[in-house]
Amino acid sequence: MKTVPGLTVVIMAGGSGTRFWPLSRKRSPKQFLPIASSRTMIEETFRRVRPLVPASRILTVANAAQSRTIRRLLPSLPAGNALVEPKGRNTAASLILATAHVYLRNPEAIVAVLASDHIITDAPLFLRKLAAAAEAAASTESLITFGVQPTYPSTGYGYIQFAREGGLTVSGEPFFPVLAFREKPTLATAAGFLQSGGYVWNSGMFLWRASVFARALERDSPEFFVFWRRMLEALKKRSASSLAKIFDEIPTLSIDYALMEKARGTLVCAGDFGWSDVGAWSALADLWPRDEQENARRGDVCAVDSRGNVVHNPGKLTALIGVDGIVVVQTKDALLICRKDRDQDVKKVLELLAKNGKTEYL
Amino acid sequence: MKTVPGLTVVIMAGGSGTRFWPLSRKRSPKQFLPIASSRTMIEETFRRVRPLVPASRILTVANAAQSRTIRRLLPSLPAGNALVEPKGRNTAASLILATAHVYLRNPEAIVAVLASDHIITDAPLFLRKLAAAAEAAASTESLITFGVQPTYPSTGYGYIQFAREGGLTVSGEPFFPVLAFREKPTLATAAGFLQSGGYVWNSGMFLWRASVFARALERDSPEFFVFWRRMLEALKKRSASSLAKIFDEIPTLSIDYALMEKARGTLVCAGDFGWSDVGAWSALADLWPRDEQENARRGDVCAVDSRGNVVHNPGKLTALIGVDGIVVVQTKDALLICRKDRDQDVKKVLELLAKNGKTEYL
Repeated sequence: MKTVPGLTVVIMAGGSGTRFWPLSRKRSPKQFLPIASSRTMIEETFRRVRPLVPASRILTVANAAQSRTIRRLLPSLPAGNALVEPKGRNTAASLILATAHVYLRNPEAIVAVLASDHIITDAPLFLRKLAAAAEAAASTESLITFGVQPTYPSTGYGYIQFAREGGLTVSGEPFFPVLAFREKPTLATAAGFLQSGGYVWNSGMFLWRASVFARALERDSPEFFVFWRRMLEALKKRSASSLAKIFDEIPTLSIDYALMEKARGTLVCAGDFGWSDVGAWSALADLWPRDEQENARRGDVCAVDSRGNVVHNPGKLTALIGVDGIVVVQTKDALLICRKDRDQDVKKVLELLAKNGKTEYL
Repeated sequence: MKTVPGLTVVIMAGGSGTRFWPLSRKRSPKQFLPIASSRTMIEETFRRVRPLVPASRILTVANAAQSRTIRRLLPSLPAGNALVEPKGRNTAASLILATAHVYLRNPEAIVAVLASDHIITDAPLFLRKLAAAAEAAASTESLITFGVQPTYPSTGYGYIQFAREGGLTVSGEPFFPVLAFREKPTLATAAGFLQSGGYVWNSGMFLWRASVFARALERDSPEFFVFWRRMLEALKKRSASSLAKIFDEIPTLSIDYALMEKARGTLVCAGDFGWSDVGAWSALADLWPRDEQENARRGDVCAVDSRGNVVHNPGKLTALIGVDGIVVVQTKDALLICRKDRDQDVKKVLELLAKNGKTEYL
């Protein structure tokens, strides 16, 4: 695969999720853990795009502490490429910062924005889509968003509604006009989306030319365009205090709300490249090795009449008797046992622990 | 409470159960573990009877390795009181050995036989029953067995059917003639037993005058009486090799089968002294401290919508989400997660481990 000239990849690594507690903690969020494979998710993300871009054109965005972790996990990343946010202010702030950084070097450079903590099992297909999108972005005034062919009526993902007609095809890959962004739907609505065929999952990955991003902000998101201009100034002057002030003042909003949902002419590039945001423990049931009773496991499991469990207990024997569909996660100081369909409630445990002053487990 | 002259307590400590795996292992069976309280079960048993007999009149019966553990756990037990069986041959052999040992010192001494791994929550009542039974045994030709008022139709215990009439009362305690020993019944049969009122649980605890035991063997169990006589000879000669030979040849049978079920004139002393044989993990649901969601626990438990679980995970946090009625047991090298009503199937795990050569966990 040839590298794509003018393409810069921005890996958003500032997340601080709690859904993989007790493995993930405040200081070691999901992207820095080897959850889906034996490598951390950010390493997997970095390695996945390397065939398309050299390390010198990969940027990460995260706070100072996270950036130190990133530089340890990605030793081949040039030091200056780990962009440091003064504080986490959601993705609009991160991506204005990263795109402004690119813009100052080359306003016509293409920026691909990836999450640091998603999995993509069909990397070749994904890279083909990404290369075609970069090519498309070079010649259009459109922002491009990546959609994923839904395989089931998920209520955990947002959806993108698109039009079959009026798009373009680049290097054999189709780009469809976005009609609307839809929030996480109910099951019935999701089923309707799937039946209609005109919807894809919103992967949270984007691609744009830096100058196009700037013009889209100016036209469709004037509130944030102000910060774009201030960000350019602060970066030009290398003023940490200005940057800190901007991050104090910029609204805490996702790029979806701040720009994508307002922008006109956005195109979606859809594909079935084995994407998952690995939103919680139960997602690992499909990723880890399974025994003949469909128990996904890390560690030695001895199962008697026990099916469909997810067990993370490396280095110890886990014996299961008569239990189905539970998640078991062992760490040095904590053990989680959770019904698989309740894995979103890990946050309730964290709330209880915080309430009871057991902050050592957070 | 006054000590009872002429009473010797024999604690049977040779068991090697597997039902408390992974806490209990081949080399640390239940009686040597602090399962029900913070003391090991054999320490609890020893301390419980001390108000009635001095340590010099408490004997234990177990194999050599177990006897070393006993002497470590019960430092006040005189060294010679830990009787060593050449090998485990079930309770008939153990009790013929122990009773013969007592008989050689005083044929009219009273022998009370206790299990080392049962719990008794109302110790004063139990000791009152024991003292009365010792008094009764001194003046009758009967073997005495201890029964427990059933509180639910257990299918896990054997039952003793008794007659209301024809017994005797000693120090206010009634002793009823035993009509029959009944094996572990079905639930329907157990319910019938409870309704009739003429049945008590067989606790596996007994009491007899040594000479009465000898005569009962001679009359009702001649097969074992042969071994009784050989045992007396071997003990008199202090011949370890004779004893080893006897233990090679003596049938492996419980005292229930070998004698109690055949003996005539046996009396039952019944009481509701909070007895349990603590047969498996779920039994601890009633013994350990519980939270407001009826989770019995050892260790710090944070429960979200989780009820009626039994958790042994000292020194670690256990978080439960949406799980009911399961047993969780953490040890250094293994973690057990078992539905409460399947706790008898721990042996299936051990069979699987043995089959797969994972003997380090046995």
